[in-house]
Amino acid sequence: MSHNKQLKVSIVQHSCTADVDANFALVESCVQQAAKQGAELVVLPELHDYPYFCQTEDVNNFDLAEPIPGEKSQLYADMAAENDVVLVTSLFEKRAPGLYHNTAVVFEKDGTTAGHYRKMHIPDDPGFYEKFYFTPGDLGFEPIETSVGKLGVLVCWDQWFPEAARLMALAGAEILVYPTAIGWDPNDTKEEKARQLDAWITVQRSHAIANGVPVVVANRCGHETDASQHLAGIDFWGNSFACGPQGEMLQQTKNQPAIFSITLDHSRAEKVRRIWPFLRDRRIDSYSDLLRRYKD
Amino acid sequence: MSHNKQLKVSIVQHSCTADVDANFALVESCVQQAAKQGAELVVLPELHDYPYFCQTEDVNNFDLAEPIPGEKSQLYADMAAENDVVLVTSLFEKRAPGLYHNTAVVFEKDGTTAGHYRKMHIPDDPGFYEKFYFTPGDLGFEPIETSVGKLGVLVCWDQWFPEAARLMALAGAEILVYPTAIGWDPNDTKEEKARQLDAWITVQRSHAIANGVPVVVANRCGHETDASQHLAGIDFWGNSFACGPQGEMLQQTKNQPAIFSITLDHSRAEKVRRIWPFLRDRRIDSYSDLLRRYKD
Repeated sequence: MSHNKQLKVSIVQHSCTADVDANFALVESCVQQAAKQGAELVVLPELHDYPYFCQTEDVNNFDLAEPIPGEKSQLYADMAAENDVVLVTSLFEKRAPGLYHNTAVVFEKDGTTAGHYRKMHIPDDPGFYEKFYFTPGDLGFEPIETSVGKLGVLVCWDQWFPEAARLMALAGAEILVYPTAIGWDPNDTKEEKARQLDAWITVQRSHAIANGVPVVVANRCGHETDASQHLAGIDFWGNSFACGPQGEMLQQTKNQPAIFSITLDHSRAEKVRRIWPFLRDRRIDSYSDLLRRYKD
Repeated sequence: MSHNKQLKVSIVQHSCTADVDANFALVESCVQQAAKQGAELVVLPELHDYPYFCQTEDVNNFDLAEPIPGEKSQLYADMAAENDVVLVTSLFEKRAPGLYHNTAVVFEKDGTTAGHYRKMHIPDDPGFYEKFYFTPGDLGFEPIETSVGKLGVLVCWDQWFPEAARLMALAGAEILVYPTAIGWDPNDTKEEKARQLDAWITVQRSHAIANGVPVVVANRCGHETDASQHLAGIDFWGNSFACGPQGEMLQQTKNQPAIFSITLDHSRAEKVRRIWPFLRDRRIDSYSDLLRRYKD
């Protein structure tokens, strides 16, 4: 974006199984297809190599985590280089025994590491026991500089927090990128499911609007069972999408596997920010209570 | 809301003319109708008594402003009492010669003043020269306690700032209320108009979602000319609406005058916050850069 006015971005949406190697092979095939479509930037869903293991709290799942850099991250570095794309991955990072993160790693077209982001907001919800697995990130909200622009990479639960999007925009992010793994409780009503999906799309589009930046979202799809058999599993709802800096929907998919590309135009964001200069008018003199938990 | 589980809210959408007394008479008639519909809370559009004078910079328009409390605010206090409603008004406040605010005043059912809010974020845009007229508010983001609940009253341009909504929610606001005066430049394309309206709805629904509170929006409608004849005037786009705490649309009107009521259920917001406890997971340890203009 800094260097090219037009940027072709590919969003990968896929389902995951318990077979980590098969997931990797699927991801590799998707990245190859995205590159063939001409994408310069490819975004994968959250934790794309793993079943969504957070459905249950099991210490054995820590075996899935790997150091970064490590064997797994090297495979993705090679994949980025082989396909000549900037690649946004989402890995289970082992930082030390008993210290793990949900970490997005961005690889440059030549396979070097552009940067990484450790998921800052960690959910905990029946079927999404992430606080058990992931230590909250300690790298803050720093965009990752790449050859295709400064990427504000955030992960899943972060998407509900306007603060995260704003901090990335204030630090110069040119695109907000959300790898995510979100789905329905099969026991919820049709109406509740519709409200949740609509809220998820709406809140992310609002980050585009409030900050004058495009937003790119990659989700997983498919049903995954709860290995502990206590819950009904999760129907990951797909619906990966991209919107422009006014929140205008550019493309959205359904809940089947998909690889699709959109073209972002860097000059569009500047045009939108000129007519809606929200960054000009923020009342930073009156925002200090944002640093409080609650004003009681 | 603190005291009654169900709350009937009426939203008034009307057009304005250069005749301030006629505008007042129209507003009075609307409030009477809203009260007859059984509303306990009535929300008026921004600056409902005046033509949208900010289309041009003219010092004579300061004649429209009045002290608060003053004759004008007393008329609205009486109107609230006569109709037995909590009334959210939007007035042009003269605080001192050369010092004016865009001020929302909330009256209790007995005509006492529940509180007021001075618009914090002030736009300035061709046709919306508000920085000329309105000194930015200095009362912060404090909800107004009323007999129908704590109201997070914000005004128009505030609606684009997630910080404003969040601060109101953190201070205990149970409903976000936006009197507003927003419209189209008649010279914009149909597509641009559609994007602007959609963005405006989306960003306000996102405040409901991010904070787990209902949102109530009252806009004006109708075309108003630019008194200085430099611009094409403004087509105020109406589309006043209310949504629930998951962002779910409760009711939305078109761009004709309208008085409509929705019922808010206090218990609904708590249910939504229990499944989506965003306030639990905010990374207040990492938000300090929100107090900066930009991170260069």
